[in-house]
Amino acid sequence: MNLLLLLPDDFISSERVQIRGRRLQHVNKIIKAKPGDYLKTGLLNGEIGRAKILTLNNDVAELALELTDAPPPPLAITLILALPRPKMLRRILQAVTSLGVKQIHLIGSWRVEKSYWQSPFLAADKIHEQLLLGLEQAIDTRLPEVHRHPLFKPFVEDELDTIAGSSTRLIAHPHATTAIGSAPLQALTLAIGPEGGFIPYEVEKLAELDFTAVSLGPRILTVEVAVSSLVSRLAVNLETDKHSAHN
Amino acid sequence: MNLLLLLPDDFISSERVQIRGRRLQHVNKIIKAKPGDYLKTGLLNGEIGRAKILTLNNDVAELALELTDAPPPPLAITLILALPRPKMLRRILQAVTSLGVKQIHLIGSWRVEKSYWQSPFLAADKIHEQLLLGLEQAIDTRLPEVHRHPLFKPFVEDELDTIAGSSTRLIAHPHATTAIGSAPLQALTLAIGPEGGFIPYEVEKLAELDFTAVSLGPRILTVEVAVSSLVSRLAVNLETDKHSAHN
Repeated sequence: MNLLLLLPDDFISSERVQIRGRRLQHVNKIIKAKPGDYLKTGLLNGEIGRAKILTLNNDVAELALELTDAPPPPLAITLILALPRPKMLRRILQAVTSLGVKQIHLIGSWRVEKSYWQSPFLAADKIHEQLLLGLEQAIDTRLPEVHRHPLFKPFVEDELDTIAGSSTRLIAHPHATTAIGSAPLQALTLAIGPEGGFIPYEVEKLAELDFTAVSLGPRILTVEVAVSSLVSRLAVNLETDKHSAHN
Repeated sequence: MNLLLLLPDDFISSERVQIRGRRLQHVNKIIKAKPGDYLKTGLLNGEIGRAKILTLNNDVAELALELTDAPPPPLAITLILALPRPKMLRRILQAVTSLGVKQIHLIGSWRVEKSYWQSPFLAADKIHEQLLLGLEQAIDTRLPEVHRHPLFKPFVEDELDTIAGSSTRLIAHPHATTAIGSAPLQALTLAIGPEGGFIPYEVEKLAELDFTAVSLGPRILTVEVAVSSLVSRLAVNLETDKHSAHN
C-alpha cells in the first residue's frame, strides 16, 4: 500500500477523514505511523496529496487532508481479456490496474471454462477490491472499469467495434509471425486469449474487425506474464504514454 | 507444460526416453495423450522437436525422439535482482525464465529481510524446479544460471563490474526522472531493487559502476509486475531480440 486510498464514506468533513479496518491495520502494523506523521493519500477518482494523522488507535484513525495533484494520466489501452482462472484473475486485475489500464473487458472464449464465470472472485465487490489494491500499489486513483461478456460471439459481433472505436486493434497471439512494430499509436485495443490462445475461429472473428495478430517473441508466456509484458511493451508505442513518461 | 523437457537421466538409448512422475502425470491427466501421439519435446540445454509415445501407463511412458531445432536465442539481459519474498521468488523465476533471461543474480539489499536467505525455496533443487517450469512454459531448453550474493557491498565492489562487462547498465528505480529511451542496445545488465526500492547508498554504489537509474513511468509496480514489464520493455531496444522477433 503505497497510497492511502480514500472513499467517499471516509469523510467526516470536507478535509477530514476517518479510516478503519484493513487500511488502518496497514497504517498501524506495517507503516507504524504516529500522530503528526504524513501519509501519501488520494481520493478514489480524485486528487493525490498527503494526509496528516491527527489521532490514531486500534479502532480508528482521523486524518486531515491536503490533496493537491492530479493522478497519473490513464494508459490509452483497452484490454480485452479471455477470462483467466479465478485465482490468476485477482493478480492480473491488480497488475493491469497498477500499470494504468482503465478499461478491462473479460470475455468468454472456447478455451475458457464456463464454470469460471460462477467463481466468487468474479463478484463485483471482489473485483472492486483487487482494483483498489492495484491503485494503492501504483499511487493512482482512477478506478478501472471491468466489464463481463461471457459469450464470445455476440460480444465480438455486437459490441467490440464500438468499444475499440478508432483505436489500433491487436490480438496477442503466441503463434503470430508478425512482431510488434514501432509505429506510434494514439490508442490501442489489445485482445489477449486464454492459456492455449484463441481458437482459429475466434482469431478470424477478431480479424473481421481489423484486429491484427502480433507476437511478443518466440517464447510462450503464461497469460499473467503476457499481460504485464504486452501492456508495458505496447505502452512504448503510445504517444500519450511517451509524453507522460518524459515529464 | 507446453514442452516435455527431458533430462539426461531420462535416456535409455540415444533416441529413446522413459518419463515418470510429474511429467508423466501431466501427459496422462492434462494432455490425455495416447500411444502414437506426438508431444512437443526438448532436451535440457539441447534441441527441440517432437517425441512419439510408444508405450504409456500410470507408472512410465516410453517415447522415441526426433529433436531437430535449436531453442530460441537467449535474451541478452543479465538480471540483478534484490532477493524477493520467497513465495514471490518462485513466480518471478518462472516468469523471467519464460521471458528468456539466462543470467540471474539474486542479491542482498538494505530492504531485503535477511531471513529470506534461509528459505527452503532458495535451495538449489527448488530453484532448479522453477527454472524447469519456466522452460516448459516458454518452449525453451537453455537453463538459466541463478547466482546468490547475500552481501550487497562486496558483490557490487568486487563482482558486478565483471558480470556487467561491456553491457549497458540500468537500475530500475521507481522515482527516477529519466524514462527508458529508445537507443539500441547490444546487451543489458538490469538491476531491480526490492519492494520500496534500493536505498540511496545502494543507488550511489551502483551509479559508481555507471548504472543509470530509469523509470518505467509514473506508477509504482510490484517487483513481480516490474520484472516482466521491464524485461519486455527493454527487450525492444536489444538488437539481438529485434532480429529474432522478426524471424
